[in-house]
Amino acid sequence: MTKEKKNKPSKELPLGFVDRQEKELLVRDFIISNIKEILIKYGFQYLETPSFEYSDSIGKFLPDKDRPDEGVFSFKDENKWLSLRYDLTAPLARYVAKNYLEISKPFKRYQLGTVWRNEKPGPGRFREFLQFDADYVGTDNLLADAELCIMASEILAKCGLEKKDYIININNRKITDEWINKLNLDFKDINDLSKAVSIYRAIDKIDRIGLDGVIQLLGKGRKDKSGDFTKGADLSDSQIAIIKKYLIEGEQPMENVEGWDELIKIEKIFSAYKFNNYKITPSVVRGLEYYTGPIFEIELKFGVKNSSGQTVKFGSIGGGGRYDNLVSNFGNIDCPATGISIGLDRLVFALMQKKDFDIKAKRPVIICVFESIEIEEYINILNKLRDSKISSEIYSGVGKLKKQMEYANKINSPAVILYGDNEKKLGKVILKNLKSGKEESVEIERLSNEIKKII
Amino acid sequence: MTKEKKNKPSKELPLGFVDRQEKELLVRDFIISNIKEILIKYGFQYLETPSFEYSDSIGKFLPDKDRPDEGVFSFKDENKWLSLRYDLTAPLARYVAKNYLEISKPFKRYQLGTVWRNEKPGPGRFREFLQFDADYVGTDNLLADAELCIMASEILAKCGLEKKDYIININNRKITDEWINKLNLDFKDINDLSKAVSIYRAIDKIDRIGLDGVIQLLGKGRKDKSGDFTKGADLSDSQIAIIKKYLIEGEQPMENVEGWDELIKIEKIFSAYKFNNYKITPSVVRGLEYYTGPIFEIELKFGVKNSSGQTVKFGSIGGGGRYDNLVSNFGNIDCPATGISIGLDRLVFALMQKKDFDIKAKRPVIICVFESIEIEEYINILNKLRDSKISSEIYSGVGKLKKQMEYANKINSPAVILYGDNEKKLGKVILKNLKSGKEESVEIERLSNEIKKII
Repeated sequence: MTKEKKNKPSKELPLGFVDRQEKELLVRDFIISNIKEILIKYGFQYLETPSFEYSDSIGKFLPDKDRPDEGVFSFKDENKWLSLRYDLTAPLARYVAKNYLEISKPFKRYQLGTVWRNEKPGPGRFREFLQFDADYVGTDNLLADAELCIMASEILAKCGLEKKDYIININNRKITDEWINKLNLDFKDINDLSKAVSIYRAIDKIDRIGLDGVIQLLGKGRKDKSGDFTKGADLSDSQIAIIKKYLIEGEQPMENVEGWDELIKIEKIFSAYKFNNYKITPSVVRGLEYYTGPIFEIELKFGVKNSSGQTVKFGSIGGGGRYDNLVSNFGNIDCPATGISIGLDRLVFALMQKKDFDIKAKRPVIICVFESIEIEEYINILNKLRDSKISSEIYSGVGKLKKQMEYANKINSPAVILYGDNEKKLGKVILKNLKSGKEESVEIERLSNEIKKII
Repeated sequence: MTKEKKNKPSKELPLGFVDRQEKELLVRDFIISNIKEILIKYGFQYLETPSFEYSDSIGKFLPDKDRPDEGVFSFKDENKWLSLRYDLTAPLARYVAKNYLEISKPFKRYQLGTVWRNEKPGPGRFREFLQFDADYVGTDNLLADAELCIMASEILAKCGLEKKDYIININNRKITDEWINKLNLDFKDINDLSKAVSIYRAIDKIDRIGLDGVIQLLGKGRKDKSGDFTKGADLSDSQIAIIKKYLIEGEQPMENVEGWDELIKIEKIFSAYKFNNYKITPSVVRGLEYYTGPIFEIELKFGVKNSSGQTVKFGSIGGGGRYDNLVSNFGNIDCPATGISIGLDRLVFALMQKKDFDIKAKRPVIICVFESIEIEEYINILNKLRDSKISSEIYSGVGKLKKQMEYANKINSPAVILYGDNEKKLGKVILKNLKSGKEESVEIERLSNEIKKII
């Protein structure tokens, strides 16, 4: 009914967005079912906030950008701006503020959901990704911080990673803040966020841009490969030297501060859980401004090939930390909290790179169709297979046997079933194994059992 | 670190968006796992297109609106407009056009995903919802149309609905078009879409606005309760009478047309599958312009209470049909297709209304904490429970026993474990059943078994 002349629409996707195929989605489902099983065991509740929030509810806490609403997808709706969430933490803070009287304290919730970043897309940099978050809200008990790390470790183990494949790096924002204080920066105190945050963000990028890149960002600024320039924190050489020595290389831990005591307490809890797959790492600072205490980062240590074919360490797939003041932004609520987040698309990609990891899609057995046979007869065979939970279908296209076989091969079907006049006379079908090429004549009653042997 | 004075952000959600709680999400997970199991059995592939598409790729086929980009959330990105998908069919057509040479023919795919409509929100009208779609692309074989209906029925049955709870209504757009042709409308032919589509959309709303509302929309127009006016199709009284008699009341089926023959063929296939939970229903027209052949609608027949407390028939939770020209909009590709779609949020809501349907959230057993006992001892108990896959946690807040018990009750915990100095001396714990109030002293080694008896 659409015969009028018009321009053809685009077949392409906007940059930063991708179609995801079955194999990747099955790996993702496997990860998600592991996450759900573990989170229930740990006593978390399942919650889902919507994709959109009022921009002012979430805009203040945007990562990696200086202007409140840069980097998000926003719409004007009647008189107010709406934004697609860029993480799951800011919406959680809004949810807690809205439902503060009703929720348990502590409130333990997990969420799985897409987040969006309206940033410059590039190779491997997407504008939408799936995240998993778990948070303890309403408690400053460090047991919560420790359990988040242990839980993340259990998720990775359940997904098939070995101890040597990953490590949880921990640190404390309070220690980092003490170092920044020592720099005698030309702002009044640590609450002049812009400079402190630009330092955290610079350090946080070390995996991606290397030490030289970080040092450029701590100084005047850095030009990336595309020629784009990012303004730096404008620190002096001696200030940069201090950061390099104590915050990046971590030469001398700062042991007599509150932040250090907290790490010792967390280590004690780890030890009681017999969890030792962690490391205190001074360069783990996370780029977000809202952290106030312990910080964690989940690092995958095995090598993967990058786009230039070089083997590189996979790096971070998530992390989190304590954010004791985020909920109080919504009102006079004292609500300490801590949370962790895993980037599921990155974890899917990492698992798919592991040689010994494999999840296979179930492809259907194809019942080929001959013109001389009534469709009812094929449906009878089909129902027998499906009753035995065998993935199967009657060829639903239009074409002769050659085309039907091409289809079966194209979709990687394990086998086809041939039932023409000869077979009907014999009361049997031909079962053709498409992997081995072997054909055998099988009674219909035995068919499901024979198929189960070869799929 | 955010001590500066500022306005408090909003705690509220934008209209048309909601937070979804555990119970609802668990019902949804149950439905989704049923869908995946059945779709694999039927031989469909899993695919996921992204949330965003170029607006021109999907804007042309917008339901329920006359302007191409009205009703969608759109952003200007560099020079082109992007839109959030409003359904999963238009993105599928784009995917097929883009990958036409690589995909199998037919191409059977299913997708689960959020869609967005930037429409006026109202009670029970959301602006984001989760859909499930399954489509056969690249075939005009009516086996495909028939299997979609049977598959939808199997999904509902697996979710616990009985045959009397639902029906698949079927019709054919070709028959509706013939009737519209007979009206001698003042446009050149059936390809003058605007009037035909406005008639379909009016008829399609019968569940929501009743017969009188439909008749108003076929005539001059209709004012809704909020006072908003929707322009009508401007038909004469005699034209409206024809539509009422033949398309809504279906007094006389039109049996000598191609569309009718197709329905007969589909009925024959249904009968071979022994599927009889369907009805040919002339008023099922679907509001989308792109349908070209068989049309289906999934109707739930059981009563639910509406917001005024009246019992009403639940109505449609999805449907679909054949759209043979949608892919060809992207280029000179002859690609017939048919698909079906289920609104998962509506199905969740429907199942939760059924008295005999229940899915319970697993709530953790709480290990209470006494100051005099080392945390290691509690962690030892916890590890035993979690190793037995018992949802459990050590109280992670800050507070004495009274507060801990309040927390356990608040989250509907089935039981708490008390282990203080006395218990330590005895080498036992107290297991308190929070449903019955009963307490018993249990050896730690027997604890998991005892808990399993009461959860």
